Amino acid sequence: MLTKIEAIIREDKLNEVKSALTEIGIIGFNIYEIRGQGRQGGISLVGRSGSYQVDLLPKIQINIILSEHNLDKTVEAITQAARTGRAGDGMIFIYPVSEAVRIRTGERGREAV
Amino acid sequence: MLTKIEAIIREDKLNEVKSALTEIGIIGFNIYEIRGQGRQGGISLVGRSGSYQVDLLPKIQINIILSEHNLDKTVEAITQAARTGRAGDGMIFIYPVSEAVRIRTGERGREAV
Amino acid sequence: MLTKIEAIIREDKLNEVKSALTEIGIIGFNIYEIRGQGRQGGISLVGRSGSYQVDLLPKIQINIILSEHNLDKTVEAITQAARTGRAGDGMIFIYPVSEAVRIRTGERGREAV
Ligand SMILES: Nc1ncnc2c1ncn2[C@@H]1O[C@H](COP(=O)(O)OP(=O)(O)OP(=O)(O)O)[C@@H](O)[C@H]1O
Ligand SMILES: Nc1ncnc2c1ncn2[C@@H]1O[C@H](COP(=O)(O)OP(=O)(O)OP(=O)(O)O)[C@@H](O)[C@H]1O
Ligand SMILES: Nc1ncnc2c1ncn2[C@@H]1O[C@H](COP(=O)(O)OP(=O)(O)OP(=O)(O)O)[C@@H](O)[C@H]1O
Ligand SMILES: [Mg+2]
Ligand SMILES: [Mg+2]
Ligand SMILES: [Mg+2]
Repeated sequence: MLTKIEAIIREDKLNEVKSALTEIGIIGFNIYEIRGQGRQGGISLVGRSGSYQVDLLPKIQINIILSEHNLDKTVEAITQAARTGRAGDGMIFIYPVSEAVRIRTGERGREAV
Repeated sequence: MLTKIEAIIREDKLNEVKSALTEIGIIGFNIYEIRGQGRQGGISLVGRSGSYQVDLLPKIQINIILSEHNLDKTVEAITQAARTGRAGDGMIFIYPVSEAVRIRTGERGREAV
Repeated sequence: MLTKIEAIIREDKLNEVKSALTEIGIIGFNIYEIRGQGRQGGISLVGRSGSYQVDLLPKIQINIILSEHNLDKTVEAITQAARTGRAGDGMIFIYPVSEAVRIRTGERGREAV
């Protein structure tokens, strides 16, 4: 069985998360930049003319398609590497995957990831 | 049960959609910019030397992971806020989600979103 | 039944893949730029002061939500158009989709894609 992890993390935690993935043998992944808000609905900044709200904060999203038997340790590794303990540490979302295909070889399923 | 909404909307409808989400109490989401085409395969623009086709138009994608009991009202709110009635208003796609984890606290499932 | 294809391809294969999709009648899709690594963990480049590793290579991700009866021919068309035979040709991932809604008309399911 295949599964997908989407991990939304602080930008400055990318290197730590990458190292943590390498350490447990997770090599294939992709990333892109997103903006968003969590349950606080952004953050309040205090300026000279009072406080104002910045609602869409930049984060990095890491996507990993992997075999389900690697799921738990990968979620654990990301969580530990990405955590600071302050609001805004991010979220991990997990999804079912029906199939994976390596374009070069045509390999499918667990062989492909 | 958790579920994911991907809403692809016009760039100039983002503020209206954000307000509509706030109004119904949906706070957590993320966005990024995509380009794409719908069933018209792009649009025809008329220039001095005849008409030409622009095929990949920019849109905003909004991603929301939420509890399934919030799904219907959220799809309804996005649809109403994003609609102009003209081609190119966008699409909403809905996916199953297996799990969500808040990195800071380790909370899972409905507690996490 | 609806399904989603995520195809991660070389940037310079986008036009060929787009043509292949048009040819089989697949019109709706979206794209964005990602960076990532496959099982080689990036590539080694040789410079004057020795070799060094570039780990996150740019690729294009194409996303297509389609009716399941179009899935096999679409995966086949992308695979053939994107393949060079060298490492880095990319991956195709397939996911279950619960629902699709066209915002302008409210159409759902197969009518919407
Ligand atoms: N329900 C959600 N759906 C989609 N994206 C989300 C959701 N919640 C958070 N995000 C994304 O994750 C990022 C980080 O969220 P954040 O860590 O602030 O979550 P949180 O629920 O507010 O937890 P915390 O209380 O620890 O801050 C947000 O900026 C947004 O991009
Ligand atoms: N089947 C699809 N798969 C993936 N993305 C799609 C699909 N259809 C549309 N999109 C994305 O949604 C955007 C908006 O699509 P659009 O609103 O033009 O859809 P449409 O089906 O052509 O409906 P309309 O007839 O109202 O224009 C596109 O630019 C593309 O990014
Ligand atoms: N398991 C994975 N999860 C998420 N993204 C991946 C995964 N594997 C590869 N990718 C993405 O696909 C891109 C292309 O991967 P690539 O074609 O190098 O795969 P590969 O498994 O190394 O196959 P090959 O041996 O043919 O190079 C990567 O740069 C990355 O963005
Ligand atoms: Mg937060
Ligand atoms: Mg259209
Ligand atoms: Mg590779």
